[in-house]
Amino acid sequence: MREIGIDQLDDMARGAGILGTGGGGDPYVGKLLAREAIRRHGPVRVYDIDEVPADATVVAISGMGAPTVLLEKLPAGTEELTALRALESVLGRPATHLVPIEVGGVNSMIPIAAAAQAGLPLVDGDAMGRAFPEAQMVLPTLIDVSNTPMALADDKGNTLVVDTISNVWAERLARAACVQMGCQVSCADTVMRGDQLRDGLVPATLTLAENLGRAVREARAAHADPVAAAQSVLGGVRLFTGKIVDVERRTTGGFARGQALLESVQGGTGKLELSFQNEHLLARRDGEIVATTPDLICVLDTYSGEPVTTEAMRYGLRVTVVAAPCDPRWTTPGGLELAGPRYFGYDCDYLPLAV
Amino acid sequence: MREIGIDQLDDMARGAGILGTGGGGDPYVGKLLAREAIRRHGPVRVYDIDEVPADATVVAISGMGAPTVLLEKLPAGTEELTALRALESVLGRPATHLVPIEVGGVNSMIPIAAAAQAGLPLVDGDAMGRAFPEAQMVLPTLIDVSNTPMALADDKGNTLVVDTISNVWAERLARAACVQMGCQVSCADTVMRGDQLRDGLVPATLTLAENLGRAVREARAAHADPVAAAQSVLGGVRLFTGKIVDVERRTTGGFARGQALLESVQGGTGKLELSFQNEHLLARRDGEIVATTPDLICVLDTYSGEPVTTEAMRYGLRVTVVAAPCDPRWTTPGGLELAGPRYFGYDCDYLPLAV
Repeated sequence: MREIGIDQLDDMARGAGILGTGGGGDPYVGKLLAREAIRRHGPVRVYDIDEVPADATVVAISGMGAPTVLLEKLPAGTEELTALRALESVLGRPATHLVPIEVGGVNSMIPIAAAAQAGLPLVDGDAMGRAFPEAQMVLPTLIDVSNTPMALADDKGNTLVVDTISNVWAERLARAACVQMGCQVSCADTVMRGDQLRDGLVPATLTLAENLGRAVREARAAHADPVAAAQSVLGGVRLFTGKIVDVERRTTGGFARGQALLESVQGGTGKLELSFQNEHLLARRDGEIVATTPDLICVLDTYSGEPVTTEAMRYGLRVTVVAAPCDPRWTTPGGLELAGPRYFGYDCDYLPLAV
Repeated sequence: MREIGIDQLDDMARGAGILGTGGGGDPYVGKLLAREAIRRHGPVRVYDIDEVPADATVVAISGMGAPTVLLEKLPAGTEELTALRALESVLGRPATHLVPIEVGGVNSMIPIAAAAQAGLPLVDGDAMGRAFPEAQMVLPTLIDVSNTPMALADDKGNTLVVDTISNVWAERLARAACVQMGCQVSCADTVMRGDQLRDGLVPATLTLAENLGRAVREARAAHADPVAAAQSVLGGVRLFTGKIVDVERRTTGGFARGQALLESVQGGTGKLELSFQNEHLLARRDGEIVATTPDLICVLDTYSGEPVTTEAMRYGLRVTVVAAPCDPRWTTPGGLELAGPRYFGYDCDYLPLAV
């Protein structure tokens, strides 16, 4: 057991933003929410997966919506607890632990805020080991754990509980409601027992996020290369360094979808094209695919090493794209069916990274 | 207390179809559902509003969706009970009585089927005294009774419970989910105590539907004018008799929307235009508005007196349009704000019928 206080949030949000592969929401907004909750309610206890009792009731907490909307429409800060209470009421028992559904700037911070507000401990891990755009794209789906009952709450006071025959159906119904609720809601779902966490979570990703964020900060302070520091912690490969010259982005169906084009600077001729749906899903270098979902495609500010979320991509930004291997369960046939490139409509197979 | 058996269903479905003003779903489909449920579980007890104990838990049962879809995608027959159980589970207590949310071919029959299946009595009345397309258009909204918790169930086994800050929000969230669920779901909602029914319901509309349906059948058997018989029971005015010459209909946003044009036959020159959103909302005769929502605009087959639902309107059909006054609570300022012509985007005020 350890504790997360206000001092850890900067590193953790930065690292989670990088692991979020462009999605999971703006780290700054997430940090504000977690900081305020810890300031009011005190630090949050964090347990390793192994420390969680077998009969614990672990609930995943997250924000759902389009990160483009989150930038302009801040959460009220009460939604997570409202969603949690709605879920507990249907379950007929209280949650004993909370856990992030994914890592990402906001989606690592919202569970911290919720844990502080609820006085509950957090589990060090998440259900993706990265961020994915759709609710069924979690390891629990691969082990037949339902993501419902799923409770949604908006900033206005509306709540919704869905109970579906599959995790894909939960995504469909929740997403449609989420769009009506203003494209930014909080969710409590994917209830697991403690003894399901080993198969249902990627372990220690909060710790990884903090280490990653610290490495970037320390490299910057030492006038070293922060991107290289991130790449080293991620065990990834550098795909491209250049300038964003074009971004096509639209908020449709409850997602931020689009493409971005990067060009080399300093006389280089190469190009890199990124395709995203909240998260970066495909990278093409000079027309050739060099990285695909479910591997992590992370865009960092070349000078500061800060994560650049898909909604923050804009012309002129100097960025470096790093790819890192996903949790190996995502590259099984079941994992690729759920979150591989073909699911998203790209006519290509998963391309293992040359690390 | 009286009982509804299989023998009453024909008249009741016909009458409810007429009172449904084009909406509420096809009477034939509704009759099949109710007949099968009564065949299996026996007749349904029906109580007048005055006979319901003050502390009763009365739940409204209905189908939501586009009637154009219902014609091709029949309910599984299990949805109502699933929705009811989901609602009861959130309420923490069982329903003691069921009631239709509206009259209409299917929406008068589904509560009968649900009552038979659940072994619960039905209240003789409904929350509109006609059919309306949207969930907040019920008398309970006028007396600040929430239509949530509202439970939805589809034919596949998915359920949803919404709990909202207003009855309009319930419509928004439920409609969005309904579209995803295939545009045809069952709902259990608008929980009232027995002592709220006098203000929350239009009384005795099941009896009215049966009387109306019987009058049409008996007139037909006596070779009298079945439309005149219906008009007499409704206390309405005959707006037009003619032939349907054009129907423009689209299923969008979870509704069947459109216009129909009627022309006189036998040398006449007049025209009548009907505008509908599931239900008929506006009638223009020779360009002049002659009837508006919330009054009832009923389209009947000229020869048989059978109700013609908006989804069944087709070229060549000989029909007579009868308008009848709505429950007086709908023509109050609050009622007109909720279901008057301006709510639906028509640039005109409510026009009281010249009866």
